[in-house]
Amino acid sequence: MMRSQNLDTTFAALADPTRRAILARLASGEASVMELAKPFSMSQPAISKHLKVLERAGLISRGRDAQRRPCRIEAKPLAAANEWLERYREIWEESFQRLDALLDEMKRKE
Amino acid sequence: MMRSQNLDTTFAALADPTRRAILARLASGEASVMELAKPFSMSQPAISKHLKVLERAGLISRGRDAQRRPCRIEAKPLAAANEWLERYREIWEESFQRLDALLDEMKRKE
Repeated sequence: MMRSQNLDTTFAALADPTRRAILARLASGEASVMELAKPFSMSQPAISKHLKVLERAGLISRGRDAQRRPCRIEAKPLAAANEWLERYREIWEESFQRLDALLDEMKRKE
Repeated sequence: MMRSQNLDTTFAALADPTRRAILARLASGEASVMELAKPFSMSQPAISKHLKVLERAGLISRGRDAQRRPCRIEAKPLAAANEWLERYREIWEESFQRLDALLDEMKRKE
């Protein structure tokens, strides 16, 4: 139950390109809100809203330094999301194999 | 851009426990709306709404049989979501290793 709610908030947090880009930036190291806002040409309040969603989903944590409160990525919820997706690996690999077989057959017919 | 929009709709579709349960059910084979509605103790219109979200995200397709219109899972968007998550594997594995090291140290101190 708990687990399922976690997946809800994780997937909802990931359903936004800015939030995914913030995680990509934080994957290379901590950053303050100001540092994060710059490349996105977004206001600090707009970035702060996205950070709150990421923080509630446990995908980032904020440092204690009152001035900067640097953000860092917390990848554990991503591991849980990945684990859920992995159950379907067999299905997508089969469908890619069917596609490959179809393309091969088309080439042979040409 | 296209790719990013796809990830938006995929992750948004996965952010719901009923939709994830529908995919889990369809992983073991096609099913009609009626067959899907039964175990969820949900009305058919409620299930149909969820199916529309999944269909728009490309996560299921509907058969042509006018009566049953069986649903089948389409796992390709899950492969794309998995690919996005895999970029962070190094980060979550490192954090699990740090946790293991910490637990080992606590045990030694006891």
